[in-house]
Amino acid sequence: MAKEKKLVEQITAMDEDFAKWYTDVVKKAELMDYSSVKGCMILRPYGYAIWENIQKDLDARFKETGHENVYMPMFIPESLLTKEKDHVEGFAPECAWVTYGGDTKLTERLAVRPTSETLFCEHFKTVIQSYRDLPKLYNQWCSVVRWEKTTRPFLRTSEFLWQEGHTMHETAEEAQAETLQMLGIYRDFYLESLAIPAITGQKTDKEKFAGAEATYTIEPMMHNGVALQGGTSHYFGDGFAKAFDITYAARDNTVKYPHQTSWGVSTRMIGAIIMTHGDDNGLILPPAIAPIQVAIIPVAQHKEGVLEKAAEIKDRLAKTLRVKLDDSEQSTGWKFSQYEMKGVPVRLEIGPKDIENNSCVLVSRVTREKKFVSLDNVEVEVAAMLEQVYNELVARATKNLEEKTHTATSLEEFLDVAENKPGFIKAMWCGDVACEEALKEKTGGVKSRCIPFAEERLSDKCVCCGKPAKHMVVWGRQY
Amino acid sequence: MAKEKKLVEQITAMDEDFAKWYTDVVKKAELMDYSSVKGCMILRPYGYAIWENIQKDLDARFKETGHENVYMPMFIPESLLTKEKDHVEGFAPECAWVTYGGDTKLTERLAVRPTSETLFCEHFKTVIQSYRDLPKLYNQWCSVVRWEKTTRPFLRTSEFLWQEGHTMHETAEEAQAETLQMLGIYRDFYLESLAIPAITGQKTDKEKFAGAEATYTIEPMMHNGVALQGGTSHYFGDGFAKAFDITYAARDNTVKYPHQTSWGVSTRMIGAIIMTHGDDNGLILPPAIAPIQVAIIPVAQHKEGVLEKAAEIKDRLAKTLRVKLDDSEQSTGWKFSQYEMKGVPVRLEIGPKDIENNSCVLVSRVTREKKFVSLDNVEVEVAAMLEQVYNELVARATKNLEEKTHTATSLEEFLDVAENKPGFIKAMWCGDVACEEALKEKTGGVKSRCIPFAEERLSDKCVCCGKPAKHMVVWGRQY
Repeated sequence: MAKEKKLVEQITAMDEDFAKWYTDVVKKAELMDYSSVKGCMILRPYGYAIWENIQKDLDARFKETGHENVYMPMFIPESLLTKEKDHVEGFAPECAWVTYGGDTKLTERLAVRPTSETLFCEHFKTVIQSYRDLPKLYNQWCSVVRWEKTTRPFLRTSEFLWQEGHTMHETAEEAQAETLQMLGIYRDFYLESLAIPAITGQKTDKEKFAGAEATYTIEPMMHNGVALQGGTSHYFGDGFAKAFDITYAARDNTVKYPHQTSWGVSTRMIGAIIMTHGDDNGLILPPAIAPIQVAIIPVAQHKEGVLEKAAEIKDRLAKTLRVKLDDSEQSTGWKFSQYEMKGVPVRLEIGPKDIENNSCVLVSRVTREKKFVSLDNVEVEVAAMLEQVYNELVARATKNLEEKTHTATSLEEFLDVAENKPGFIKAMWCGDVACEEALKEKTGGVKSRCIPFAEERLSDKCVCCGKPAKHMVVWGRQY
Repeated sequence: MAKEKKLVEQITAMDEDFAKWYTDVVKKAELMDYSSVKGCMILRPYGYAIWENIQKDLDARFKETGHENVYMPMFIPESLLTKEKDHVEGFAPECAWVTYGGDTKLTERLAVRPTSETLFCEHFKTVIQSYRDLPKLYNQWCSVVRWEKTTRPFLRTSEFLWQEGHTMHETAEEAQAETLQMLGIYRDFYLESLAIPAITGQKTDKEKFAGAEATYTIEPMMHNGVALQGGTSHYFGDGFAKAFDITYAARDNTVKYPHQTSWGVSTRMIGAIIMTHGDDNGLILPPAIAPIQVAIIPVAQHKEGVLEKAAEIKDRLAKTLRVKLDDSEQSTGWKFSQYEMKGVPVRLEIGPKDIENNSCVLVSRVTREKKFVSLDNVEVEVAAMLEQVYNELVARATKNLEEKTHTATSLEEFLDVAENKPGFIKAMWCGDVACEEALKEKTGGVKSRCIPFAEERLSDKCVCCGKPAKHMVVWGRQY
């Protein structure tokens, strides 16, 4: 087991330095690599395979709810980007600008898309004439660019992969319902597929998307108590429609502006998975999106019949699961720690003695519990352990979220919690942006995450200014 | 049927104006739309769904042969792009250049990737140390940008979607085998999934990829006899490896340069599908990649029981096929021509009389043959007609390819064929680039497509200069 220990030691302990632990994990689990383009990363096969599983799962959820995929150009002419005032103010400062095509200076510079509302609006104008053309329920999988000064793998990079949904509706009510439906899909996906419970709610005006009337958000908590904005869904009203002059002939023969939404999640989710579930031995992947769900490690593989039996089990399991049989010449210990580091949910060990007993050993990546099971029903046993891994991940993350969610009813208490207890703070708020700014300044970075859907009434007064409280807000530091 | 006729009349006849017929089809079948970014197009839901089916099919073929997907940054620093001399000469003139990030001028300008050999090489340098790290079999699905002066939907656009495979191998032999294997996968995919037969072979030195030692190509012929370069596979030798200083510790304890390949196909394939199979009624899609394989049109749908029966058939077929039941309020005639225009392979009509007879009508999009079939085995009948559609598409395209492939053994004959007979010309060639250039000039654009794998010996003399012939070349005009 010497080698196993050595490999594990390569990862900094979480408690020692969480940020270093994180970068150790992303590098050593071979999720990504740096490139010579500042702030851009390379998604390596294992990291990209996680993204492919995420895509496949979410894409099915989008299609089930009637959405269609499209592809818009990656460039936005400056004049198009500037059509909606709030929007351009929010994004222009972080755009990468194309100014030359070959040797020719462009007459108008082009932004590499930071988000595609403007492109979709331009297209909507040509394809929407009548209420019969509505709703338009579009989604796009692509990469976007936001020129970032400081970057961290998956969490903040100058280019990242994402999906952006863009929809148009006859009425405000229908668009609002879409906005909430999509946030619900994100919440279900986080819980069901990523095993991540999270707080959901509405962003304050200060924190909402540039150009939106309302922004809804999912805010999972990382293991260290820091929030990660996990996905957002925006209701635009008819603001962009007016700016882009998109109208439709309504059922009552009047001409109306359609109502719009957009919503997106990105490769940040891989960061959320790492920081929610990972431990000092590396990554732990929820079974639904793990590229390898079961790693089969033959023990004493040179002995007669071991590899044959391992291959036989692999074939049986591979009918319904993603399975890897590692019959390489690396030591068994090296393999154990390798697949632990890569977060494979279940390890299956099989050696000569197991074969004699018509059994094998299953090991859970979360609890590291070992279970001897009969080969007769290995499919059922593996499925049960995967289910158990999922349940344990949800339970642990829920416990972390609950234990690190605090309340504060006075400014003193708020500052004390912010200083001493990592995590979220539930506290009442008057609705004034000045109080948000004051709390952020006094705490050195605690911001409103959202007004949660599950709002409580902790007191009648704003925790900051003491004026009458309008909402309970969940506050926290963020990535 | 008045409406049907009207709709069909909106498409220009192929014989009248093939180019206009093409743009009519791409627009009216709602495959794409133009955007305000010159040369970039919007892939609308129906066009993107074709691309999704292509991706899924090809991706499975790549994975079966051991390839893994990755994602590289979309930007290439100028210094990286210029590391391989031939490569940069080929691509720099058509690069889009990013020069600003927000308000800050970049110290080094960045090309939006026109292709990613340089990025892959930079990464290979960090992940390849030993023969144990080889082969690296990577693929990437992404968009690339090549600043084009004149553009046509799908065929030539400034941004397009594609896949680019990039692999590294221990030996030249292994890399050459990979290059040919991937061209073989393209050939199989074209024939099996797109129903497109094509000539395959090696590009002449003049036509090969910038930086490659050898380029292999698949060259389908469009209905009008014009070639479309349908996909290429390149063998690089160790040229890039040397330029990027990528080495590995070999089995014999020496330090060696690995051998490299790259290969790609793009959304151009959608152009190939349109121009190979389409007719005066619009698109015809091969069943394997058709977003809708069967369109169910209820006849007299207001009559009792019609929609229920149509829905029941839909549910039965949808277990294995992509089916759309159109129960909208449009007329039956409109629906017929709509799904013809969109190239749906099989139409299923069902009305009160059919239901009485426990039958329905199947109509082939290719031959427009009608077949009355029993509802008892509708699944089998539909599958058989889809198979028939596929076979007919292959037969028609093969006939077109054969009929429009001519031979020439003298310059006079070559020029006569080039002038009067659209299609390919098989003719002998001395191997001299001067003859390629002379033939292109004399014919106003006929170029070497490839030296086909199925080479023939038509004569001993170069068709252009009369010197001893080295190869038979297939020549033709191209998109």
